[in-house]
Amino acid sequence: MRKEMFNHEINILRDTYRRLLRRNAKTNLIKLTGKTHPADLAVVFRHFSEEEQNEIFSLMKENVHTSEFLTELDDALVNDLLEDESFERIASIIEKAPTNDQSGILNVLDDDKAQSVIELLNVEEQEGIAEIMGYPDDSAGLLMNTEVFTLHESITAGEAIKTLQDQENAEMVFYLYITDNDDRLVGVISLRALTTTPSSTNLKDIMIKKVHSIRPETDQEDVARIVAQYNFLAVPVLDSDSKLLGIVTVDDVVDVIREEATEDFLQMAGAGKDREILLKSSWENAKARLPWLFASWVGGVIAASLIGVFENMLENIIALAAFIPVILGMGGNIATQSSTIIVRGMATGRVNEGGEIKLILKEVQVGIMLGILYGILLGVFARFTFSEAPDNLGFVVGLSICVSMIVAATVGTIIPLILRKLDIDPAIATGPFVTTSIDILGVLFYFIIAGYFLSI
Amino acid sequence: MRKEMFNHEINILRDTYRRLLRRNAKTNLIKLTGKTHPADLAVVFRHFSEEEQNEIFSLMKENVHTSEFLTELDDALVNDLLEDESFERIASIIEKAPTNDQSGILNVLDDDKAQSVIELLNVEEQEGIAEIMGYPDDSAGLLMNTEVFTLHESITAGEAIKTLQDQENAEMVFYLYITDNDDRLVGVISLRALTTTPSSTNLKDIMIKKVHSIRPETDQEDVARIVAQYNFLAVPVLDSDSKLLGIVTVDDVVDVIREEATEDFLQMAGAGKDREILLKSSWENAKARLPWLFASWVGGVIAASLIGVFENMLENIIALAAFIPVILGMGGNIATQSSTIIVRGMATGRVNEGGEIKLILKEVQVGIMLGILYGILLGVFARFTFSEAPDNLGFVVGLSICVSMIVAATVGTIIPLILRKLDIDPAIATGPFVTTSIDILGVLFYFIIAGYFLSI
Repeated sequence: MRKEMFNHEINILRDTYRRLLRRNAKTNLIKLTGKTHPADLAVVFRHFSEEEQNEIFSLMKENVHTSEFLTELDDALVNDLLEDESFERIASIIEKAPTNDQSGILNVLDDDKAQSVIELLNVEEQEGIAEIMGYPDDSAGLLMNTEVFTLHESITAGEAIKTLQDQENAEMVFYLYITDNDDRLVGVISLRALTTTPSSTNLKDIMIKKVHSIRPETDQEDVARIVAQYNFLAVPVLDSDSKLLGIVTVDDVVDVIREEATEDFLQMAGAGKDREILLKSSWENAKARLPWLFASWVGGVIAASLIGVFENMLENIIALAAFIPVILGMGGNIATQSSTIIVRGMATGRVNEGGEIKLILKEVQVGIMLGILYGILLGVFARFTFSEAPDNLGFVVGLSICVSMIVAATVGTIIPLILRKLDIDPAIATGPFVTTSIDILGVLFYFIIAGYFLSI
Repeated sequence: MRKEMFNHEINILRDTYRRLLRRNAKTNLIKLTGKTHPADLAVVFRHFSEEEQNEIFSLMKENVHTSEFLTELDDALVNDLLEDESFERIASIIEKAPTNDQSGILNVLDDDKAQSVIELLNVEEQEGIAEIMGYPDDSAGLLMNTEVFTLHESITAGEAIKTLQDQENAEMVFYLYITDNDDRLVGVISLRALTTTPSSTNLKDIMIKKVHSIRPETDQEDVARIVAQYNFLAVPVLDSDSKLLGIVTVDDVVDVIREEATEDFLQMAGAGKDREILLKSSWENAKARLPWLFASWVGGVIAASLIGVFENMLENIIALAAFIPVILGMGGNIATQSSTIIVRGMATGRVNEGGEIKLILKEVQVGIMLGILYGILLGVFARFTFSEAPDNLGFVVGLSICVSMIVAATVGTIIPLILRKLDIDPAIATGPFVTTSIDILGVLFYFIIAGYFLSI
């Protein structure tokens, strides 16, 4: 119900923009843009054609509202908008933005262009951007907000409140970070504790000294895990000398969690890891999906060659061919179930090192239960529908699907566990490995069982 | 790197607990539990055997720390712990907890037991719980914290700070909600704005009047979307008279986003939607996975029957059988890619109503590109490896895989779109529908094409 309303509001906004664009009502367009939340603007932009996007963007002011809009917007669209934009305009849009937003926007541009824009900023901004851009991809360093409000441990609560009143910028203040003479983080105070303490109290005496912190190299997935685990609103980022470099706030963590989940979804399906794949051209789309399909093509070709080897068996009992799809299909599906459960369990911290053997045994049990059930079902079906075939075709088919499902559940469990041991992201590689191996193993077991029991 | 550290800390905690349990050092166990963060305790509990869990829990105090621990713990484990626990102990553990935590814990118990526990609480608590439990599943009403700190619009900033100082409970105060004489929400003030305003200013004059709010029936996915979209720390829940019922805070939203993603993962793989499936027995596990496998079993049986119909073609050209796995496999994989991209796009708001035709056309294009590529690859392979087969087997196989992939990409795109139109959760139903229809369509097109070109 609410989702409808949400879409409804966006649709009204889109229609208003379209009407004003048709009338070429520039003053109204500027006014509407100024009044619209940057996040809403970013969503409604997905509905516009490229010309509409460019026209609206050309009317936008060079201010923080616009840089916030660019930060919320999909990277692919940011790239389209800024492609033909002058260095000067980009620089004046981002010059007042927080450093992490600046580097986020610059990261979308190609290196030369980004460099030219950076050169137009003042030296202090340039240094800040250079520092952030030096951190590894997907690390806390890129996420963190470097404009942190800090207070010295020796001042009083009253002085602290006064300092806070003079502070214009630090928008998202919920914790106040306390430092010593060497700029090291020594404690934290919640804003609420500060306002409810007698004003002569020393910060040192009310601050919480045990502060959970992270390093700038910490992977964003781990940052998300910590923030989610302890219900933090923000977590400080320290260098090796305990100096406070910045804070990662929960709103950025929310975005990380959603983005990481989307990437894992796409990777598990072998569709690349580009969250914005829907905004890309068919050609880029096809390119992202090609590699996984190649892996499964190789698997299919090996399966075809195997069947070629057993051609003489098929010649005698054509009915065997009929059950190839169901045996491979059921195997593939149970393997996908197992590997999805394991991969997701790893992402949410439910699959811990040390419990692997128990996990595998359990999945084998599940495979046995489901294998026997579907083996009987398929065996009975085969026995009564393919009545011209040998009497024990039903038995062979039933046993084959049972074996195939047990093997598949096991393989589907083991492959992600092995990949993690080898430090390969299980979400990337599980899809291709699992389905390919199931295709080959399924065919192999099927014909071995058939050869043994059908005495051809 | 950090993840290692994280696991390392949990492992140390686990080993410490084990050592104390072996020595039966009750005093130390109680002390350790008191010092451990409830969230850490909930994680380390996953590592313990049932006896260990029961022993540690029996030593835990009846206080908020313990109820926070139960709130963080997996539902399946909560159920195990409280199964043999007395009503009185459960009641005294939860009596001081926030109402949403109380109802969260009670929801895990079976209805009779929950009722008996509720009757031991005081009347006010009972009413609060009854109200929350009346809201629909997965709604904002169940998520919200009802202990909200409110201020009347006519008081001054100075008076507000004084009131805040007397407030013990409201732990997570970042916004101050302002109400009028009829208890209606009329505005909001950030704690920071309050501390930085002259103390004689009226709240009415500094509050922000336009407040984004939700209703208690709002689905938690939509709540998550709003909080993520606007970077909120909390969002107020209002009834139809604009009365403030509670607030949903960002830490709960973080949990919702993670849980919803996990459910979608499992559903897409046809493995039920129980986030705690790894904690369940093999039998429950198998039961959750059985239905989807049945759908694919039916698809496989239909495919087998279809192949039975075309038996005479297979008799003439046995090599045809060899390519069944690769044709169905490639079709299934490209369909999974398409449907995953669409389903995830819907979840993240990137697939909007109105753009369906464009979306389908694009996926068809992707199908054509990849279909032609893999058609040629497989055709060439078939031509040269199965040299005894008819000359145009390569052509037939290549054309079949091309058609199969185009059809699969289209079907994989259309099915989730149709399901959404019918108000069926696309994540639940896409898996079974897509793979089953691809198996059947793939076999059908393959034999029709073979029959036409191979003139059997």
